[in-house]
Amino acid sequence: MTPPQPPTTAAPASGGRVCEHPDRADIRLEAVLHALSDPMRLRVVRTLAARGAAAACSEVELPVSKSTSTHHFRVLREAGVISQTYRGTSKMNALRREDLEALFPGLLGSVLAAADGQDGRLGPAAGAVRT
Amino acid sequence: MTPPQPPTTAAPASGGRVCEHPDRADIRLEAVLHALSDPMRLRVVRTLAARGAAAACSEVELPVSKSTSTHHFRVLREAGVISQTYRGTSKMNALRREDLEALFPGLLGSVLAAADGQDGRLGPAAGAVRT
Repeated sequence: MTPPQPPTTAAPASGGRVCEHPDRADIRLEAVLHALSDPMRLRVVRTLAARGAAAACSEVELPVSKSTSTHHFRVLREAGVISQTYRGTSKMNALRREDLEALFPGLLGSVLAAADGQDGRLGPAAGAVRT
Repeated sequence: MTPPQPPTTAAPASGGRVCEHPDRADIRLEAVLHALSDPMRLRVVRTLAARGAAAACSEVELPVSKSTSTHHFRVLREAGVISQTYRGTSKMNALRREDLEALFPGLLGSVLAAADGQDGRLGPAAGAVRT
């Protein structure tokens, strides 16, 4: 038997799949705050911020099911907090720091600092970030 | 018939009713962000911040029913964003600025500034504050 061959074309392995993102002008503060208000989503954002680079969903450890994890990433994307782009079969996630900073100066930084401060007071709990 | 008489004692008209509030140490970032993520609750917070003083629920105009309004104030109180104290038959609401600033430095200010900035971009919409 011939083993399955990896794709050999230069075409994107995503098969043209593209995730929809809100334009910067359509990002709303209330949606961003809602996206950040969930412990798992906040953990995603903290992990991406700590990495300073895009990460596959599988690289962000969340103690939830795959489908729940996918849901949280989608909420973050639809709120404009992260971008998601296909790389092969992986979705790569990145913080939309520039967009958020332009719209809401200092907000993301204060949330990240607040999360760190809370960890410091309570000890790393559900929201703790491992990088 | 004798009409019902108003109470004549000096006892507080609240009848001793006291709202429960989380201690500062029990205020959680996720709950605060959730409380702030609703347009009506954000409007309450902006109104209280703009006044710089406590306000009765009836002094904060919200285009929602009384029961919905009561719900929003309760969510804010239970998250630790506002305090509610009875004064006569009114509940007086005040921002817990000192507690929030101690726990999450700069967070409330950046949210308020972000809300103002959004109004500036979009024009005063549902979140607009009239003082």
